[in-house]
Amino acid sequence: MEDTARLTPHEFERELRESLGEGQVSTGGSDLRRFATDQGPVTNYQEPDAVVWAETVEDVQSVMRLASRHGVPVVPRGAGTGVSGGAHATTGCLVLCLDRMDRILELNPEDEVARVEPGVVNADLNAAAAAHGLMYAPDPASYRISTIGGNVATNAGGLRCAKYGVTRDAVLALDVVLADGTLIHTGHRTLKGVAGYDLTSLFVGSEGTLGIVVGATVRLKYLPTDIRTLAVFFPDMAAATAGVLALGAARVQPSILELMDGPSLEELDMRNGSSLARRGTALLLAQFDGLAAAQEAAVATTALAALGGNATLEDPGEAERLVDLRRHNRGMDVDSETTVGEDVAVPRSQLVHYVAALQAMAERHGVGVRIIAHAGDGNLHPTFWVADADAAKVAALNAALDESIDTALELGGTITGEHGIGQYKLRWLPLEQAEEVRSLQSRIKDLFDPQGILNPGKAIVRA
Amino acid sequence: MEDTARLTPHEFERELRESLGEGQVSTGGSDLRRFATDQGPVTNYQEPDAVVWAETVEDVQSVMRLASRHGVPVVPRGAGTGVSGGAHATTGCLVLCLDRMDRILELNPEDEVARVEPGVVNADLNAAAAAHGLMYAPDPASYRISTIGGNVATNAGGLRCAKYGVTRDAVLALDVVLADGTLIHTGHRTLKGVAGYDLTSLFVGSEGTLGIVVGATVRLKYLPTDIRTLAVFFPDMAAATAGVLALGAARVQPSILELMDGPSLEELDMRNGSSLARRGTALLLAQFDGLAAAQEAAVATTALAALGGNATLEDPGEAERLVDLRRHNRGMDVDSETTVGEDVAVPRSQLVHYVAALQAMAERHGVGVRIIAHAGDGNLHPTFWVADADAAKVAALNAALDESIDTALELGGTITGEHGIGQYKLRWLPLEQAEEVRSLQSRIKDLFDPQGILNPGKAIVRA
Repeated sequence: MEDTARLTPHEFERELRESLGEGQVSTGGSDLRRFATDQGPVTNYQEPDAVVWAETVEDVQSVMRLASRHGVPVVPRGAGTGVSGGAHATTGCLVLCLDRMDRILELNPEDEVARVEPGVVNADLNAAAAAHGLMYAPDPASYRISTIGGNVATNAGGLRCAKYGVTRDAVLALDVVLADGTLIHTGHRTLKGVAGYDLTSLFVGSEGTLGIVVGATVRLKYLPTDIRTLAVFFPDMAAATAGVLALGAARVQPSILELMDGPSLEELDMRNGSSLARRGTALLLAQFDGLAAAQEAAVATTALAALGGNATLEDPGEAERLVDLRRHNRGMDVDSETTVGEDVAVPRSQLVHYVAALQAMAERHGVGVRIIAHAGDGNLHPTFWVADADAAKVAALNAALDESIDTALELGGTITGEHGIGQYKLRWLPLEQAEEVRSLQSRIKDLFDPQGILNPGKAIVRA
Repeated sequence: MEDTARLTPHEFERELRESLGEGQVSTGGSDLRRFATDQGPVTNYQEPDAVVWAETVEDVQSVMRLASRHGVPVVPRGAGTGVSGGAHATTGCLVLCLDRMDRILELNPEDEVARVEPGVVNADLNAAAAAHGLMYAPDPASYRISTIGGNVATNAGGLRCAKYGVTRDAVLALDVVLADGTLIHTGHRTLKGVAGYDLTSLFVGSEGTLGIVVGATVRLKYLPTDIRTLAVFFPDMAAATAGVLALGAARVQPSILELMDGPSLEELDMRNGSSLARRGTALLLAQFDGLAAAQEAAVATTALAALGGNATLEDPGEAERLVDLRRHNRGMDVDSETTVGEDVAVPRSQLVHYVAALQAMAERHGVGVRIIAHAGDGNLHPTFWVADADAAKVAALNAALDESIDTALELGGTITGEHGIGQYKLRWLPLEQAEEVRSLQSRIKDLFDPQGILNPGKAIVRA
């Protein structure tokens, strides 16, 4: 850093425009508004000072060199589909869009890896992999529009995680631009490798606060040759959650195991014209894949029948429709002051207790709740809602939210299974992490980003 | 730290004995010799000043508080089965043995997790899990005697990794004593969780240089209900390595896929009275598990026959014997000046080229080589050897080793797939990792261990 003095915003903008090409920098009002927020709840609306679209690694390096020199905060952004406010703009920041860096640089079916730029859309990578009988396993509900860079930043989960792992399990190596513009390469192209500290995992899930991911080498897995999907309706949620444990006891590993309660089924029916709620008051949607898919579905049918589960093997078209409905369930719940979706996870044995507790606390606080869950790994997305935004109702909603977090932690859970802390969940993080851990994280942040310009106020609580 | 002045060794030893119980501290010559080295090559033999056996977390905290105060280096140690010298004693150090902390604190089949002390032997955890139809998947060849703490320290791999992942993939949470004696808890008990930075992964594989693992929460997987094992003999190594890719193209995922060359088969026969070498000059040992094991074995048999592979479905007893022979193959190659086993990994597509290159370089340098590999994930353990320790031969051996490393890196590989850098592989680390990465690692080390007392001179090259 040859010059650490703060220059005027005008000088910064001039230098930014000089170092990038035509159409890569905007300070127009509609762009500033459009890139002010992601899909997370907004508690402190800020617009960026400028929006920048990087097209190359060198662009990102130039931006970070300038931002370092001028002390300007940078909020990196993929598709902006995050739901925790990890890409919300902060005071005086630059939003750095990476969605134009969208090339699949290599897809090697023999090595079972792909190298991608950060702006590649998850579904596009999957389409390219499918041509070789492969898949990129992590499948957040947003996979049709979210980017690999954003998935890496949040360590995105999805439906297939219980069997195939989360984003961290799929990332072998990263190219990262550090706060001062230095480009580093972490990890290995090989499926195994243990040289040095695992910087790759440290960057995965760090929400752009330690560096900017400009490239990823990811592992691909075999596209399953057969898929069987069961819709299993139960008389109540207690029986359905017990079903999750019954599948474990039967030692069959579903690739997808989604749980939906009655209110969620009614909501789906209302929005999609389906008639799920007529079939039962709780649904386990279980997908099995691989050569043994049919056998596993049969084992599951027997195991779940013992708990009152009525299983139907869905034809492939209907199965895809059901999984799609589930995926987009989240999409319909855009968070607001009156509707907030949660992302807690609890140990699997606590699912049944936690679901009962959620229903009881909603009743006690006089708010609505509907529950969907990636039940296979204990990750729940309860949505709390109130009918309108009067102060008492919003207070009741927040009280229910806080209680849902407290109870999840009491049961040995976490406040975020896959969405990340972002900006919105910072208030709960100290409930989960002790001061010593927060302090270590804070010092790691200082080590990587001494000026504090990388996505400030996100992911960790500064000690 | 109330007193940072160096005291005399005598005072340190007195305080150590005062803070621990009877039989927990030794300065006896035979103990110092016994705990001077692990199973890695020794290039700088040192004996510790003392050996300490921790029995509780508090013991580890006491030892680290004292070591910090007196500036004494601490080398943590599990079973001492590492092969990279990660547990070799260094000048003036204390060896801190954790093998007495060997309790399985909890094994919860519904949550599919276990909480263990670091000294629990891998095989003991697996035996306890098997009673519930579960397994702890990472299975280093040493699993019968190595500890979970040591497995975590080295991010141990094993035979089942290609399908089930390495140690890092199995570790959900850790209890770690930091250099100053502070106890922290990282990670989550749930199967998914993304709160804050991934400190858990940072500790996994850090070889005791960032903190001392005193507890681990690990994920268990379902014990497979069926297992089928194929011994597939090929006319040459080129066909056998091509077979690895053919299995991928057929989209069957073996749980074990081991490759052995002719010299390895001859060595096994000589030591075990088997007659493998008579059946072919290269062996792929492929195990499939789960409900589709038989179908997958059939698909594999057809795919490999097209390459000249002659597959025999082994009966369970013989299959176990073959896998066991393979596992203990490493055990017979205790490294010395004249015999060194390597641990490189290459992208799967490069296996065939790398194997040919290894054979060519051995011939060129006039040294022997035999090759075994966890072929499924491209992780090779070639063993180079010379007949005796005269200087020219040892030099030729080292030249071949260096060339094998260079070639692996040129092919996009890594210098260590699963054994770790330890002390022995430090010389090669700068060939793999750029200065910027080494510098970051060095600064992370300083952050966690400002005095440099945690296993100094291991795992990373100080920048």
